[in-house]
Amino acid sequence: MKSDIKNKFVYNFRDGNAQQKKMLGGKGANLAEMVQLGIPVPPGFTIATKTCLAYLGEGNQFPQNCWEQILDEIKDLETQTKKQFGGTKNPLLVSVRSGAPVSMPGMMDTVLNLGLNDQTVESLATITDNPRFAYDAYRRFIQMFSNVVLGIDHHEFEKKLTQYKSTKNFTKDTDLSAEDWQQIIEQYKNLVKEQKGLNFPQDAVKQLKLSIEAVFKSWTNSRAVTYRRIYDIPEDMGTAVNVQAMVFGNLGDTSGTGVLFTRNPSTGEKSLFGEFLLNAQGEDVVAGIRTPQEISGLQALMPKVYDDILAVTKKLESHFKDMQDIEFTIENETLFILQTRSGKRSAAAGLKIAVNLVEEGFLKKTEALLKIEAKGLDQVLHPRIKTGSKKQTLTTGLPASPGAAVGQIAFTSESAEKLSKEGKSVILVRHETSPEDISGMDASVGILTACGGMTSHAAVVARGMGKPCVSGANEITVREAEQQLSIGELTLGENDFISLDGGTGEVILGQCETEPSAIDENFQTVLLWADEIASMRVRANADTPTDATKAREFGAKGIGLCRTEHMFFDEERISAMREMILSGDEASRQNVLAKLLPFQKEDFKGIFKAMDGYPVTIRLLDPPLHEFLPQKDSDIEALSATMNVDFEVLKKQVLNLHEVNPMLGHRGCRLMITFPEIARMQARAISEAACECQKEGILVLPEIMIPLVGLTKELSFLRKEIELVLTEVFMKQKTNVDIKIGTMIEIPRACLVADEIAREADFFSFGTNDLTQMTFGYSRDDVGKFLPEYIDKDFIEQDPFQSLDREGVGKLIRIGVDKGRQTNKDIKIGICGEHGGDPSSIDFCFHQDFNYVSCSPFRVPIARIASAQSYIRKWGPNR
Amino acid sequence: MKSDIKNKFVYNFRDGNAQQKKMLGGKGANLAEMVQLGIPVPPGFTIATKTCLAYLGEGNQFPQNCWEQILDEIKDLETQTKKQFGGTKNPLLVSVRSGAPVSMPGMMDTVLNLGLNDQTVESLATITDNPRFAYDAYRRFIQMFSNVVLGIDHHEFEKKLTQYKSTKNFTKDTDLSAEDWQQIIEQYKNLVKEQKGLNFPQDAVKQLKLSIEAVFKSWTNSRAVTYRRIYDIPEDMGTAVNVQAMVFGNLGDTSGTGVLFTRNPSTGEKSLFGEFLLNAQGEDVVAGIRTPQEISGLQALMPKVYDDILAVTKKLESHFKDMQDIEFTIENETLFILQTRSGKRSAAAGLKIAVNLVEEGFLKKTEALLKIEAKGLDQVLHPRIKTGSKKQTLTTGLPASPGAAVGQIAFTSESAEKLSKEGKSVILVRHETSPEDISGMDASVGILTACGGMTSHAAVVARGMGKPCVSGANEITVREAEQQLSIGELTLGENDFISLDGGTGEVILGQCETEPSAIDENFQTVLLWADEIASMRVRANADTPTDATKAREFGAKGIGLCRTEHMFFDEERISAMREMILSGDEASRQNVLAKLLPFQKEDFKGIFKAMDGYPVTIRLLDPPLHEFLPQKDSDIEALSATMNVDFEVLKKQVLNLHEVNPMLGHRGCRLMITFPEIARMQARAISEAACECQKEGILVLPEIMIPLVGLTKELSFLRKEIELVLTEVFMKQKTNVDIKIGTMIEIPRACLVADEIAREADFFSFGTNDLTQMTFGYSRDDVGKFLPEYIDKDFIEQDPFQSLDREGVGKLIRIGVDKGRQTNKDIKIGICGEHGGDPSSIDFCFHQDFNYVSCSPFRVPIARIASAQSYIRKWGPNR
Repeated sequence: MKSDIKNKFVYNFRDGNAQQKKMLGGKGANLAEMVQLGIPVPPGFTIATKTCLAYLGEGNQFPQNCWEQILDEIKDLETQTKKQFGGTKNPLLVSVRSGAPVSMPGMMDTVLNLGLNDQTVESLATITDNPRFAYDAYRRFIQMFSNVVLGIDHHEFEKKLTQYKSTKNFTKDTDLSAEDWQQIIEQYKNLVKEQKGLNFPQDAVKQLKLSIEAVFKSWTNSRAVTYRRIYDIPEDMGTAVNVQAMVFGNLGDTSGTGVLFTRNPSTGEKSLFGEFLLNAQGEDVVAGIRTPQEISGLQALMPKVYDDILAVTKKLESHFKDMQDIEFTIENETLFILQTRSGKRSAAAGLKIAVNLVEEGFLKKTEALLKIEAKGLDQVLHPRIKTGSKKQTLTTGLPASPGAAVGQIAFTSESAEKLSKEGKSVILVRHETSPEDISGMDASVGILTACGGMTSHAAVVARGMGKPCVSGANEITVREAEQQLSIGELTLGENDFISLDGGTGEVILGQCETEPSAIDENFQTVLLWADEIASMRVRANADTPTDATKAREFGAKGIGLCRTEHMFFDEERISAMREMILSGDEASRQNVLAKLLPFQKEDFKGIFKAMDGYPVTIRLLDPPLHEFLPQKDSDIEALSATMNVDFEVLKKQVLNLHEVNPMLGHRGCRLMITFPEIARMQARAISEAACECQKEGILVLPEIMIPLVGLTKELSFLRKEIELVLTEVFMKQKTNVDIKIGTMIEIPRACLVADEIAREADFFSFGTNDLTQMTFGYSRDDVGKFLPEYIDKDFIEQDPFQSLDREGVGKLIRIGVDKGRQTNKDIKIGICGEHGGDPSSIDFCFHQDFNYVSCSPFRVPIARIASAQSYIRKWGPNR
Repeated sequence: MKSDIKNKFVYNFRDGNAQQKKMLGGKGANLAEMVQLGIPVPPGFTIATKTCLAYLGEGNQFPQNCWEQILDEIKDLETQTKKQFGGTKNPLLVSVRSGAPVSMPGMMDTVLNLGLNDQTVESLATITDNPRFAYDAYRRFIQMFSNVVLGIDHHEFEKKLTQYKSTKNFTKDTDLSAEDWQQIIEQYKNLVKEQKGLNFPQDAVKQLKLSIEAVFKSWTNSRAVTYRRIYDIPEDMGTAVNVQAMVFGNLGDTSGTGVLFTRNPSTGEKSLFGEFLLNAQGEDVVAGIRTPQEISGLQALMPKVYDDILAVTKKLESHFKDMQDIEFTIENETLFILQTRSGKRSAAAGLKIAVNLVEEGFLKKTEALLKIEAKGLDQVLHPRIKTGSKKQTLTTGLPASPGAAVGQIAFTSESAEKLSKEGKSVILVRHETSPEDISGMDASVGILTACGGMTSHAAVVARGMGKPCVSGANEITVREAEQQLSIGELTLGENDFISLDGGTGEVILGQCETEPSAIDENFQTVLLWADEIASMRVRANADTPTDATKAREFGAKGIGLCRTEHMFFDEERISAMREMILSGDEASRQNVLAKLLPFQKEDFKGIFKAMDGYPVTIRLLDPPLHEFLPQKDSDIEALSATMNVDFEVLKKQVLNLHEVNPMLGHRGCRLMITFPEIARMQARAISEAACECQKEGILVLPEIMIPLVGLTKELSFLRKEIELVLTEVFMKQKTNVDIKIGTMIEIPRACLVADEIAREADFFSFGTNDLTQMTFGYSRDDVGKFLPEYIDKDFIEQDPFQSLDREGVGKLIRIGVDKGRQTNKDIKIGICGEHGGDPSSIDFCFHQDFNYVSCSPFRVPIARIASAQSYIRKWGPNR
């Protein structure tokens, strides 16, 4: 070695392994690992990720000594292949590909056939005895290099080619002869000259340097930035660059190229799944320009190669203990593997594969759990087309990514984004998608393409995003320019509704009825594993007996947030509520509250019964009173008539209750301190319901939660009020129920004085929605004016209302937890904001030793898995 | 000693000293100190404050061993006085008085003449040879004890006495003979029997125990709690109890009792100031029932005693190095001092006394500074009646507390509070005030009493509160029941306006014109001392050249907050501002901003000139845009006409800009990130103004402040935008000005990530108004619905918008300061919320090593003194 580790920027495939993903990128590390395993891989080397960061950080300068290391490796390649880089006798051609530590398919740039120039192309023609192939390779190189390195739009080249073909009356590329390609090469070189004022670079070393730099720079192109934002990939990873000797799938019909998955990435089924094209080069498959053949078709054409593929896939899967996504090239009936990686899969496939890998003895349950992407699991529970519903199927394409999508058609990314911002559900319809469409796909609920297979860009990305996708629906003609698609006689335009079934490939006219999915067997198995392992419980937010039952079906171990205000919104109740608000004195308020008591009590009984044996946290009335009154004059008038209250009186009351910033106003415990009779009524309803349920043999574990506490005395005052009621009810009912009294921690100040508050509380439940609002000073109702821009411009990595902001809000929570436990070491701690269903936020809670997280019933399964994953990540798979 | 310190609850006056105020209370400590000095003090002992806390804490139980210690001290008293407690031969009578570590005049209870019963009263009559005195003393004792210990309203006793007098046709108490008092005593004892069903306690020891307990309990009576709230006195101090042998000022005309100040508490003039009553007991002077004689009158009546008083006052003042407030009793021409303490004084007197004590060599400047109550200093700057203004003077009373007050009459505390809550200025008019009136006085802008002297309750409390007061205006008849007062022919009722001049004693009809006071010579002297000493600078919040000039007059060393939005509200500018808001694109916004630029620039030039040599912190545009647009349909219509914009377009724009919680919405830096052209225009105006001023020879030190930063990238983005503008301006202007760029820290999250933010900031200015709003989750606009109740009910000690909440907001600030200095150790730190003018908050800032505080110009002098005091308190008077 010429240099120590710190100054080592370049690694031969022989020197790396799969553990070094951070340094070599996923592609590089796995190429190295395959070399160790004896898999046929064309030789090459990897320029480490730190080189990219150093290059970009130092104003686009290679770090010292780096270039020398690259040239050394090129020499080594020449030795191994017995070819010369830029040499005219037997020229060495290489590919230059990006490879980040985390897979970002298609986001960054690639140059193939590098090393060709006006001389070496002649040698290649001679050596291969295939001038047509050589000139085709050269024109491909010119086009790719000019696009990636020189920034010339690839359409410009395609235009030239189309023109040429039409003059000659050619229809397919295969119609062109070697001489035709030579003509094209001249035209391409002229195009470069016109557009950039330079001759196409002939020096192979210069070509290499420029290409490596272009790959470095592609780390920060807007597509890549968007992709990282969507998938929460850190900006400071950088990409590695792999330089590898070329092998050719386009040397004729004994050559080819393909992509395969070792299992079905859509269903998880254990059978080889993939596609290939004969006489084609790399990206032809992924780009979806020619529709490829199924991989099984190779068995008849090249049985030996097919057997080799079977052997390699078996070896790779048992080695990596996971379903693999493999790229291969066949050069004159010799198999080369160009890439292997864990394959992206639909959530359902992920569950099946995990279960199967455990059954097959490859993985422990803990290891299998870690392979599941918890965040994407909601797609398994996403709606499917309702069984037995009427539907007019227009055509059937490939079932590229499962699930049902119903929406209005958009033909471009721009219009998909626009319609989505207007709150519409959009289905993006394209002839084929390309990496430029990533934000449009993100904005859509489903994707439909007319062209491209199961491994096309659209299919891969949609599965990653967990969105339904039908690809290769080739009966459809998409005319993007005219904003139209046609299927036979039928023409549809933007805004027309269609439905997709990504599980069957059906494209359906109009809006189908959908129904929620049930938890299937594999999911159930994985959830049971998770529950065996997880230390942190999962509860649900549920306000009604129906929701509570649903939550229990989804495996919730209690209710973490039962909001009582929703109970007052049905007609009979809201009029009593309004009467209470309009009462001028405590006595008449109490009278009206007495009317509400039986309703509340019945609600609570229903919930306690549904949650027999599990805790139920009931939050006392939280919203400001004006939410119960109408705001518009016309509505006030209507109410004044039905309530027989003077309009002006009512109007004045509405105005009196108006607040400039209701979020920071008279609500939560503040309201109950002004009107303690509300808290007393609710405490009575809860405790009477609890006593009566207990007498029926139900195990009730109620927890009364006081919202919006910021001062210790707010809690101690209300605690006393509630305890008085409980004592009285227990005496009357001649029984006793263990009812805990605690508080939401949702005001920043509450975190800061949590040591004092904890003395008065049996539990803390972090209300991270409000806590986020106040810590950031963002009103959720108003944040739409700037937060999307903030996220776009990377002012903030993620929407803090979706994923907990660890840096700010998280720090406050830590303060609150630490202080709370200082004075009350056994205090029960949970979270009931929407973050309770987000795996990253759940991981944060786990690391603060929360007793539970609570989320919407729908997200309970995700939270159960995320909770187990956090445990396994912390304690390892063997504990 | 029988017990160690921990178990020692009772201290003889011989064993204590003035340093032990925390343990013995102010009164007890000073009584002990006087005993050490050889001042004639009746013997006695003090029950320490911790006893009160222990008593209340243990459910009203004396701590172990305490009662034995009290009995031991009673024995000691018997030895010293040669009298027996409860003995019939020569009975020892004692007083039982409260005495907290901080003076709370009249707030807690006192029992005099304790030890009298049906037997001892006979002995007292015999020994003093004054049966009338003895029975009067007994009936006083019964009344006081029954009120304080048994809780019988003292009006009940007065009713009996009045009845008796009217049957006998007596007009004054002095008309009653010994036999009359005996009759009264029987009636009083019957009253106790009727009301409480018990015989009046005859056992002296039992009387003592019950009285001590009553004093302990009076610590938590509502008057005392209110008083502590107003004066920020902690709840956990407790009160000491002083038990002292009685001396009698009511033994005849060679006896008397009085109160005096060693200097004039209203003006500070060095001359004895006080009042006395002959043949009277203790509280008769303070209660203001009989109007007392001036102290100088005593010289003629009892020259020897007067000389003794002069000698004692001289001794006490030189010993305590402060103006003293002394209570004395003369028993048969022998002087006894019952209490000495630092006297409450008006703010103006406080300044004069401080200056004089330094001149007289009693105090160092540092010591004198500590004697000034910074919080009250605003009264010196409060308005006075405008010189030469027309006024109709109704009468002239005593000038009890200086300053001018203009308001509407209220006759009861309740109506004063009610009117004040309605936003009215109230003058409380009473025949005399009593401790029950404390909250009414607090709610009023001035106090007028018909009865009572310069040391009456009204006078003392008003001076303490810094409120104008005219007392003893005896031409006025106050008929509280009828809600009327009359002066001669004139009758005034509730809501009629009067004006008071507390400096002259004038009562004036209607609303006088007032004018601000100037800083007088004494104030100026003290301010210069303060500036010599203080390490933390004081800046002002000022938005205009006029304000800046005012601020400089008040001694501000810079501007800590110049709000730029106010600059846009005059007619010409707001229409440009509105045009900008309505512009659909950046180019047209820039055009309109160009129109605003010259205005801004002129404003800044004026401010820079006024602040030549001092830093000026300019906050960029902060409020949400809708504040610049009209909200009502009629106003929008008017604007649509003048602007020639369609009503519907305008209306839609107004609705678009509407926010549910504007406080947490699109404002501050969020706005400038959406519209960076605003920040650029302002940066241009600031830098051009700075360059031009500098060329005129003015030393400009601008600081550009970005509001509402919560994310580091908000600051770094805007910093870059601004720096680009500055560079461009400096190039054009061919000069360079050192312009700092920093941020307000006003979002909780900013404190939590202050280490990151500090890397991008030259300074932090804590915006504690918004920080308090968000940390508490209180909207200042809406908090009126519950915060007053919270303060009343002691949920929170003080209004957190007036005095910084150290427990919550303070903790966040500490986090912000510590983190900020971690990454940027030289970062300049200040505060610009309203707390910048509050001494307690200033002290907090000092302890966080702030570089400056900034407050309204008016409060700058207060802040200068508070800053010096913090320094002296930390480093001692000698540094």
